Amino acid sequence: MKKVAVLLSGSGVFDGAEIHESVLTLLAVVKAGASYQCFAPDIAQLHVVNHLTGEVDEGASRNVLVEAARIARGEIKDVTNLELEEFDALIVPGGFGAAKNLCNFALNGKDCTIAPQVEQFIREFALASKPVGMMCIAPVMVPLIYGENVQATIGTDIDTAAAVNQMGATHVDANVDEIVVDEANKLVTTPAYMLATNIAEANEGIEKLVKQVISMA
Amino acid sequence: MKKVAVLLSGSGVFDGAEIHESVLTLLAVVKAGASYQCFAPDIAQLHVVNHLTGEVDEGASRNVLVEAARIARGEIKDVTNLELEEFDALIVPGGFGAAKNLCNFALNGKDCTIAPQVEQFIREFALASKPVGMMCIAPVMVPLIYGENVQATIGTDIDTAAAVNQMGATHVDANVDEIVVDEANKLVTTPAYMLATNIAEANEGIEKLVKQVISMA
Repeated sequence: MKKVAVLLSGSGVFDGAEIHESVLTLLAVVKAGASYQCFAPDIAQLHVVNHLTGEVDEGASRNVLVEAARIARGEIKDVTNLELEEFDALIVPGGFGAAKNLCNFALNGKDCTIAPQVEQFIREFALASKPVGMMCIAPVMVPLIYGENVQATIGTDIDTAAAVNQMGATHVDANVDEIVVDEANKLVTTPAYMLATNIAEANEGIEKLVKQVISMA
Repeated sequence: MKKVAVLLSGSGVFDGAEIHESVLTLLAVVKAGASYQCFAPDIAQLHVVNHLTGEVDEGASRNVLVEAARIARGEIKDVTNLELEEFDALIVPGGFGAAKNLCNFALNGKDCTIAPQVEQFIREFALASKPVGMMCIAPVMVPLIYGENVQATIGTDIDTAAAVNQMGATHVDANVDEIVVDEANKLVTTPAYMLATNIAEANEGIEKLVKQVISMA
């Protein structure tokens, strides 16, 4: 049975991992006959957003690994505890946590950097030529991992696509039910909630991404 | 298009709504051609559980509605804002939040009570003979809403089933891929993560429950 690492960035679209994308990823992995292990970095969230009001809770502080454990039902590991040989592939759901906690794209745009332990975690999969899937805003990290000559999508958002291009990757526009496959880099991306107007639309691209990633593993 | 109210109890299996059950419910509703609106009570959680360690965070306090908004991507209403005529059915996912926040079964067992605004919310659907689906541990509230002559399942857990019977309902054992349908009360229940050993198993019963509830609406 193939085993997929799933990298989470908290729990909640505005300050962590997008919950629908994360859960739909886990469902698609198991329905495809594979198993998963969730991971997250043991770092503080950039901030905590009250998801009812949309406002930052200035006094609050939450840990990415501890909050991501909610999505994983407690079964989660720190990214520093990766045993690469146990895994056949990696998938990274989106949500603002990918751009606020995993990297700092939300603050620094094209000048962003990835949290060191997260960068090492993703890079291990890339260096071993194991397939990686990224969805929603997570592909902004692609140029920092794969360098130039890599193709990815964040959907159709002009500014975000321009930033991805400025960082050295080649952005490819895609619809919500489409995936972009970079065969040479074994990288698969899909827009998910960058474009989805409901959960079933998000699920279409996510299912395709998961199947493609597992087929390349 | 039929519209389903989904009642959440926070966000996280150990102190709130079970996230997988909640998201799979939303997916199944939309895939069935219906739409949904999430609701939750504006009350404090019984407590906050660190989902990485499983321990109660003694110093922490979180609000059920604010946390449930994470699952709902911000699109959620207080249970006191129900306009019953807008809705065709109600579905209540499980997680300890159902037994800790919606009612106090986790503390008081068969002597439990439902939070007043939650009881009124669910009762409105029952009194209007609109179909209701409950999964996982949520059906412990069934006897308090429907009285005697009602059938429901929480799976096969002997102690919980006995409590449901002592409260006046009739517990029916069910497997994870089965639903129990009480036609007279228009009530549908399924064990979900009371029995599921993985997310795909949970999804089987949840999909059946959602389809059944919508078909009765």
